[in-house]
Amino acid sequence: MNIIKGNAIIGQSGGPTAAINATLSGVIRGAMQAPQIDRIYGAVNGIEGILAERITELNGQFADEAALDALAHTPAAALGSCRKKLPAYAPDDPIYKKLFSILEKYNIRYFFYIGGNDSMDTVAKLSYYAQMQGYDISVIGVPKTIDNDVCGTDHTPGYGSAAKYIAATMQEIIRDCAVYTVPAVTIVEIMGRDAGWLTAAAAVPKKYCGVAPDYIYLPERPFDYQSFFSDVEAALKRHPNVVIAVSEGLRHADGHYVGENSQSGAVDIFGHAYLSGTGRSLEAAVKQQFGCKVRSVELNIMQRCASHLASGTDIAESIRVGQAAVACALEGKTAKMMAFARVSDDPYAVEISEIDITTAANHVRAVPDAFINDAGNHVTDACIDYILPLCEGEIAMRYEHGLPVHFVIDKTPVTEKTKA
Amino acid sequence: MNIIKGNAIIGQSGGPTAAINATLSGVIRGAMQAPQIDRIYGAVNGIEGILAERITELNGQFADEAALDALAHTPAAALGSCRKKLPAYAPDDPIYKKLFSILEKYNIRYFFYIGGNDSMDTVAKLSYYAQMQGYDISVIGVPKTIDNDVCGTDHTPGYGSAAKYIAATMQEIIRDCAVYTVPAVTIVEIMGRDAGWLTAAAAVPKKYCGVAPDYIYLPERPFDYQSFFSDVEAALKRHPNVVIAVSEGLRHADGHYVGENSQSGAVDIFGHAYLSGTGRSLEAAVKQQFGCKVRSVELNIMQRCASHLASGTDIAESIRVGQAAVACALEGKTAKMMAFARVSDDPYAVEISEIDITTAANHVRAVPDAFINDAGNHVTDACIDYILPLCEGEIAMRYEHGLPVHFVIDKTPVTEKTKA
Repeated sequence: MNIIKGNAIIGQSGGPTAAINATLSGVIRGAMQAPQIDRIYGAVNGIEGILAERITELNGQFADEAALDALAHTPAAALGSCRKKLPAYAPDDPIYKKLFSILEKYNIRYFFYIGGNDSMDTVAKLSYYAQMQGYDISVIGVPKTIDNDVCGTDHTPGYGSAAKYIAATMQEIIRDCAVYTVPAVTIVEIMGRDAGWLTAAAAVPKKYCGVAPDYIYLPERPFDYQSFFSDVEAALKRHPNVVIAVSEGLRHADGHYVGENSQSGAVDIFGHAYLSGTGRSLEAAVKQQFGCKVRSVELNIMQRCASHLASGTDIAESIRVGQAAVACALEGKTAKMMAFARVSDDPYAVEISEIDITTAANHVRAVPDAFINDAGNHVTDACIDYILPLCEGEIAMRYEHGLPVHFVIDKTPVTEKTKA
Repeated sequence: MNIIKGNAIIGQSGGPTAAINATLSGVIRGAMQAPQIDRIYGAVNGIEGILAERITELNGQFADEAALDALAHTPAAALGSCRKKLPAYAPDDPIYKKLFSILEKYNIRYFFYIGGNDSMDTVAKLSYYAQMQGYDISVIGVPKTIDNDVCGTDHTPGYGSAAKYIAATMQEIIRDCAVYTVPAVTIVEIMGRDAGWLTAAAAVPKKYCGVAPDYIYLPERPFDYQSFFSDVEAALKRHPNVVIAVSEGLRHADGHYVGENSQSGAVDIFGHAYLSGTGRSLEAAVKQQFGCKVRSVELNIMQRCASHLASGTDIAESIRVGQAAVACALEGKTAKMMAFARVSDDPYAVEISEIDITTAANHVRAVPDAFINDAGNHVTDACIDYILPLCEGEIAMRYEHGLPVHFVIDKTPVTEKTKA
């Protein structure tokens, strides 16, 4: 494409994280400094919002540095998110025609989409349609997902903060569980349907805090109740306070989720099988097998929205990668995803560059074999060494009246403001 | 009792909190400065540890200020805890005889017990036995409980930190839930079996952050499904992202817990009724009634162990009340519980004094009527004004390698050290 002057639009898509607004602040920051970019628009609820012309103007809202800083420390997606998937390419598809008529109306020449695997699929399809139709636009994806399962990048923005939350919370939970002398098993369920990156972060306190879960089970290995019971039995012989980290996505060798069928035929008021979740299923199984005190804890959405405990490294990198996306677009590139390459382990250092969007879209990156121990019930030191630098550093969270200060974007559409 | 020179012992009892070690650090600090106190012992796992002579020496471990400071920011009970209840007074009861023979062996003249309602019962019984038997000892209770349900004090150490965690997390959860346009109900279950103090803290962000759960249900009001469904229906008409805070202790008018019977006869592998928990029960009920996306979130043990987000006010007061307990003992008092009196609302200020232990022991303080709205589905502004100052202030948590630094007490018993 030619480098032309025009407007930019930014959208957020997929599940919220503690760092997706830091990336948004980085893109805004970069775009405000670019002479080629005039107006900066926010797509409210991503692609879904563009189709409904819910487009808001951002320049005025971020005139001062304090607003950008507060945005970088706000959890969730400040522009709203969506889970819309675009159809396959077809020149006359009404969705694409509508999308591009609106992009043209707003003279959008720079399109930034911050999201996970599905969102990179959107970036790939949008840029392909534009190229095929000869619409001059630079479409750049910026990865974000706590799941860390996007291909082509060392890690994803958002993962470091979730990993820090999980590691810090695991340390706190282990201290909490250690206070009584009565044998007890605590099972902590961590997010990650297909990849065990988040669950692996439970091991991080092992290196410098001297505590870790007794066992860690990732979805990369089939789950087997007999091995699990042997593990728990051995742990209960060592000490009374057993703590186990499990991924929500644990599956048996036959592909069934562990959380699917533990209540042995229990049905809800509609007669549907009661899905109790992985932690609850294992809780019931341990109670049956050992008869001891058992408890399950889900870190649930706190692990993705606890921005007060975000990783300093993650937030700084998330801002940087947003700025780099703008630089990439200004070079006239399109159909790219921004990515991190780890160029040094000690000291930890990353370089940011762009990769072809097709490398990233629709693939899932699993935890590699070298990061899982032979027994399949814990992670290796190499895994901890990979995760630890991503959790390092603390943010300077601003508090008022005892609570973190968040930034709320005014999402009033341009169309409504014009009317007024 | 006469004021005599001797040794002190400190025990922790009941559920862990983010502030119980701050109180421990305050007692140690006070005892180290007291010329009347020679050795400072820690009872490992409270009364249970004294009976087993698991008694460790603390003086040497806290020679420097950094150790006391780290202890004050460590979650859970660093000395270990117990849930042992002492029998009623009987001069020849073997448990009391054993307890006092060990106290005499260690020349214990100052006994500090940090705990909740049950622990104050222990303080009452111990001091009564000592008085009846003419054993010279000052027995002082220092309250701690996230539940805030101890009588005779404006609030309890530990509550402010839990309330801050709940308020901050609620703000983050509400941001997280706001990103999609699809109607969804999120039910957040908060601790508190008999009193709604913790659940009420979910309302705190309303005052300065502009967000709050749509509804808050406390155990002080009977729960009724029809009113609940009307509330949810009204909320779904206002906006798509409904967030509701519920106490784990919600009960129907007939006294049954809401979490007891929702799975309509579902039984576990032993044929026991499946207790799904309050949040899960309401999740199933909303799904049945409205057919929309529903999710339940339990703040679980994180709300009591998240010391990284402890309240500055709570930690400072917890240290102070520990020091005050020592001062009280040095005045020759016994059978007392330390208590806070709020002497000013604006600016917030408390005074610490002692009350008779019998005032506190075995009573539960509920959320008063003035703090609950007429409909029984939210709290009043007066309630928020009561809670907010307890959450204020941030601690200077020390981090190393990305994680909070905790202090681990060496619990080796004196008897083993003497052998070595």
